Amino acid sequence: METTGQRQPRIAVFDSGVGGLTVVAAAHAALPGLHVRFLGDTARLPYGSKSASTVERYALQATAHLARGDIDALVVACNTASACALPALRAMYPFPVLGVIDPGAQQAVLASVSGHIGVIGTERTVASGAYAEAIAKLRPDAVVHAKATPLLVSLAEEGWFDHPATEAALQTYLGPFLSDPDVSKIDTLVLGCTHYPVFKPLLSQVLRQALGRDIALVDSAQAVTQQLIDLFPQAQQGQGQIELYATDSLDRFARVGGLFFPVYRAQLGLVDL
Amino acid sequence: METTGQRQPRIAVFDSGVGGLTVVAAAHAALPGLHVRFLGDTARLPYGSKSASTVERYALQATAHLARGDIDALVVACNTASACALPALRAMYPFPVLGVIDPGAQQAVLASVSGHIGVIGTERTVASGAYAEAIAKLRPDAVVHAKATPLLVSLAEEGWFDHPATEAALQTYLGPFLSDPDVSKIDTLVLGCTHYPVFKPLLSQVLRQALGRDIALVDSAQAVTQQLIDLFPQAQQGQGQIELYATDSLDRFARVGGLFFPVYRAQLGLVDL
Repeated sequence: METTGQRQPRIAVFDSGVGGLTVVAAAHAALPGLHVRFLGDTARLPYGSKSASTVERYALQATAHLARGDIDALVVACNTASACALPALRAMYPFPVLGVIDPGAQQAVLASVSGHIGVIGTERTVASGAYAEAIAKLRPDAVVHAKATPLLVSLAEEGWFDHPATEAALQTYLGPFLSDPDVSKIDTLVLGCTHYPVFKPLLSQVLRQALGRDIALVDSAQAVTQQLIDLFPQAQQGQGQIELYATDSLDRFARVGGLFFPVYRAQLGLVDL
Repeated sequence: METTGQRQPRIAVFDSGVGGLTVVAAAHAALPGLHVRFLGDTARLPYGSKSASTVERYALQATAHLARGDIDALVVACNTASACALPALRAMYPFPVLGVIDPGAQQAVLASVSGHIGVIGTERTVASGAYAEAIAKLRPDAVVHAKATPLLVSLAEEGWFDHPATEAALQTYLGPFLSDPDVSKIDTLVLGCTHYPVFKPLLSQVLRQALGRDIALVDSAQAVTQQLIDLFPQAQQGQGQIELYATDSLDRFARVGGLFFPVYRAQLGLVDL
């Protein structure tokens, strides 16, 4: 419901690259009235291989830029930055700061019957243990099996969502992992990286081949969008603007980002952090 | 020949990441008496998407660090930094400053009979036209066919030198490229990125399948090493030290860098630029 005279809610979304556009896409589909200002720190990606203190510093710089105009909430649409920078961001800003890890953990716990939950993500996300920690808080007896799948980000950015190279990578990452008798009990897999939703069809196929059954895929873009609906239900109506900023070449951003979100509908800008 | 009482020559090698370790490996194999001090600016990679002035500034900072002890030559083992920073570095330091583009161009011109020379590299290297320019200076009638192969850096850093995913990627990048009648005339391919030498066996196989004959692969790590042999022939004997520095997590540097060079033989250190 729109209220005349009140401004529509405005959120900022931050990611190391274009993967966070899956969050913009999910949020925009559910909440078309939301103003969304996105910043992809494309000049400094990938974050997944950098140290925690470096990632925290980058996240603070990006948020300082995004918060220049009024914003009503910030989504850190990057698992690595969510794992490293949420406490520092929450200490510095008054608005709600949502990560992607807690919403993903919540959905995984709701989805899992066996209590065996798989997580795939970047090296940094997996090494941080952030999903295991978030899931343990919600269901202490859950067993989390995490596997780093670092190359998937580059494959997503190449647009190779259903490419033989991607299938070969998934086989190498997941084949030996799922053949472990304990890991094979998983009934839920968290896509612990905002780039990964593009691989859902191929992932389902590879998982079905390996396990002989379907398992639930938890998409953190969808999970964090559910929280945004709770915070800003009024934005289910209306027409919000989408502003997309990047720290590197807008040409490449538009080309690669267009694989994740119809960027031509948005206003684009370059930012120097 | 070692001369008692004289110190052995000492070079510094600089790269944005670990790819430049292929230069360290080639130089160490040919010149075991050389002292080599390497710096990988892993916290700030990739350079390929940053502005030329930023890359120049980074290269000057890195060299200021590397040149703290006496050095007798600097190798800029990074295509982007070679393209952006050589004039500034040469203006500031008295020792020889070698890039990787000119040595690669020279070897390509020596190797090619047909005058059709292929170049593969990152998006930025290919877009810069730096190899085409360097080759044109040496052989104005040469025709350069360049193709961006962006995923190869990530595949190299994953250690997938001979993996089905890498083969699928090479097929996608090179198949349509080589089927162009003009491109199919190439008899020489420049590996325009210091990560790529690890793919030589697989590349030879894919090229042979596509073209029905062998072509020369120009490895810029080997090419710049030839220049180092000319500068420091006395280092073909002796035992030099290898010092490796990085600007981000040494754990990851040792693990990924170990795919390119036996890092356990070296002294490792973290540097804050």
